[in-house]
Amino acid sequence: MAIKYPNGKSYFHNAEKQGKKQTKKKDFSFSKRGMTLEEELNESNDSYLAFERAVIHKKPTPIQIVSVDYPKRSAAVIKEAYFRQASTTDYNGVYRGFYLDFEAKETKNKLSFPLKNFHQHQITHMQQCLKQGAICFVVLRFSTTDQIFLLEAAFLIDYWENQMKEGRKSIPISELEKNGYKLYYGLSPRIPYLDVVDHLIDKARSEKQNQ
Amino acid sequence: MAIKYPNGKSYFHNAEKQGKKQTKKKDFSFSKRGMTLEEELNESNDSYLAFERAVIHKKPTPIQIVSVDYPKRSAAVIKEAYFRQASTTDYNGVYRGFYLDFEAKETKNKLSFPLKNFHQHQITHMQQCLKQGAICFVVLRFSTTDQIFLLEAAFLIDYWENQMKEGRKSIPISELEKNGYKLYYGLSPRIPYLDVVDHLIDKARSEKQNQ
Repeated sequence: MAIKYPNGKSYFHNAEKQGKKQTKKKDFSFSKRGMTLEEELNESNDSYLAFERAVIHKKPTPIQIVSVDYPKRSAAVIKEAYFRQASTTDYNGVYRGFYLDFEAKETKNKLSFPLKNFHQHQITHMQQCLKQGAICFVVLRFSTTDQIFLLEAAFLIDYWENQMKEGRKSIPISELEKNGYKLYYGLSPRIPYLDVVDHLIDKARSEKQNQ
Repeated sequence: MAIKYPNGKSYFHNAEKQGKKQTKKKDFSFSKRGMTLEEELNESNDSYLAFERAVIHKKPTPIQIVSVDYPKRSAAVIKEAYFRQASTTDYNGVYRGFYLDFEAKETKNKLSFPLKNFHQHQITHMQQCLKQGAICFVVLRFSTTDQIFLLEAAFLIDYWENQMKEGRKSIPISELEKNGYKLYYGLSPRIPYLDVVDHLIDKARSEKQNQ
């Protein structure tokens, strides 16, 4: 779909501020073709849905509607509304009978992923989901170097809580290489993250058996 | 939360057209206190979340944004937007490790539930979810008589497909009494639908063992 929601910094970055620079960059990046991480994940989810492998959707951006016009013989028009902060993560769905829940974030940094990309309510939501047996993770992209990692929510929560104690405000890429899973671009799906989820399911099963 | 989305007929019904009649009705209904089914389910989900029993949220209404103002030093204002049709059902989440997915609908009818309350894309979404092992159902309320039923998606899909062949455009209440589960109002949660889900999980397990 061609509809774009303003989803924070990356939207302005692509569409307005650095329009020309973005086009230049494309020549050097064979993988992403100027797509945002959100677009790439939506395309991946469409592909998974088409192949009946999983049903995963991005939740709509929550909007607080203030005024609506109802013109005769045509669709209702929202005349005043504001963006609200979501109380959950952006993506969820079902795969192999499991509930999947994740958030996707990008950074222009090269060496570490800033934790300020997340909010307390998202961390809380992930903790709640984990208690119910969800498979919960984040997809992190370093947009400058085009590296993508999948990190389980349990690790993210650890880093999040540690920043209060030790003051480390970002996750070094070396930690992601150690505790996360590197994702490589494919054709369809573009980001084949379910392959890592298969591994997470197997891991959870063997841990359960060893208990 | 006090924010109300226009969610089809019931919104206008409550807020504008029949404001006074609604107040009158309240005196005779001890159960619902003039709440819409959506409000009752949201309250039930809040209760389930607070008691750490499940994480289930209503998805935001999808909006197509056409124009946004960015005033200096204040929040972005959406100046023109339209309601879009959702591609999924309204509610999903995780409970006991299972993926739950459902839609909630009300009718003023007394004896049967009109199938026109559903759309093909919702039926398709439910079919896709069932293939992935989701627990999928609809919550149907007869608002005049204050009766609520939970009906498994498999039955709804049957009725939906039969209407093309036999022309029956609604589900008689007798069929809901036979194939569905009647839900009774509680205090917290107001609509204790997870008790039926527990039963569905047990049923699925024993069916699996007997295979």
